[in-house]
Amino acid sequence: MDSMRLEKQMQFLLEIDKLKSILRQNYLADGSRRENDTEHSWHLAMMVMVLSEYFTGLDTLKTIKMTLIHDIVEIDAGDTFAYDEIGYLDKEQREKLAAERIFGILPSDQAEEMYSLWSEYEEMKSDEALCASIADRLQPLTLNISTGGAMWRAHGVTMQDVLKRNKVTLDRAPEAIAEYVKNLISDAQQKGFFTNR
Amino acid sequence: MDSMRLEKQMQFLLEIDKLKSILRQNYLADGSRRENDTEHSWHLAMMVMVLSEYFTGLDTLKTIKMTLIHDIVEIDAGDTFAYDEIGYLDKEQREKLAAERIFGILPSDQAEEMYSLWSEYEEMKSDEALCASIADRLQPLTLNISTGGAMWRAHGVTMQDVLKRNKVTLDRAPEAIAEYVKNLISDAQQKGFFTNR
Repeated sequence: MDSMRLEKQMQFLLEIDKLKSILRQNYLADGSRRENDTEHSWHLAMMVMVLSEYFTGLDTLKTIKMTLIHDIVEIDAGDTFAYDEIGYLDKEQREKLAAERIFGILPSDQAEEMYSLWSEYEEMKSDEALCASIADRLQPLTLNISTGGAMWRAHGVTMQDVLKRNKVTLDRAPEAIAEYVKNLISDAQQKGFFTNR
Repeated sequence: MDSMRLEKQMQFLLEIDKLKSILRQNYLADGSRRENDTEHSWHLAMMVMVLSEYFTGLDTLKTIKMTLIHDIVEIDAGDTFAYDEIGYLDKEQREKLAAERIFGILPSDQAEEMYSLWSEYEEMKSDEALCASIADRLQPLTLNISTGGAMWRAHGVTMQDVLKRNKVTLDRAPEAIAEYVKNLISDAQQKGFFTNR
């Protein structure tokens, strides 16, 4: 392989360091500070590693890759808060441009592979994309509960908002995980973690 | 699968959130703050994803799993600075106890799998462990260079220290990567990033 190929790969690997500075709305489990996108992505990959056994016939490597790269577009496009309806209006366009620029730093074959993996995740059409998306909802749910609903209260999030956000899990996750999430949300409601409207 | 199994898995996934608060000595590429263990682990997994093509016959899934979990023991054992010779004296014992406790939160079959993956990485005997170890040295090297050697200067690190730390790469990495690292270190020396002793 030529040395330009390695140069491009190393340039990409340095560029994505910026993802460590993109903050999410939720806090760490101990409530000490907000979480960033790389911490979140690592946590999702760990979640897939531990919970993939519940998903029949899953390509675990592909799913872990999806979790690792799913937020890289936010280096340019920023984090769109899960309950920000206005932010979601142009999210797709902003993120596509970001994907083209950032993945485009890589040699073209790897750029295409990353873009395709990211699109598949966004479209949530494969089993792997479904598993990664379920992890993407379950991980902040557990952190938000661990902090006594601090993020939900700060943003006036209702139980209906959370049920809507977790609909894909409740409808399509393996039974044990869907049941677990249903109980988490119902428990959080009883503890008064949500805003009533 | 019984519900206790999922409970244990979710308890483990919450426990490892603490890794986000374990700081390393090196800074982010922009020098804004020190990096933590989960950011570092995510970055290594990305590095393996992009550079695995240089390693013949590699089990990429296994290597990525290694990078994701390799520092989890530091939740209990703390980060031992790469150039801290005294810290290294009891590192092995501290980390073994930590691995037993933290991986032990998982159902026993998964606890054994994680422990075995972590041991294999530590012993650096397989191709996968070698690849993960090379990434573990290359990633901070690029960040330290990006900050103009800020971490090296803060700790009085010499070029000999860095050559020793990267010996496994220089001796055993695929040629293109070994050559790249050799040039990085020589370049850093010319720029005065190291302490002379």
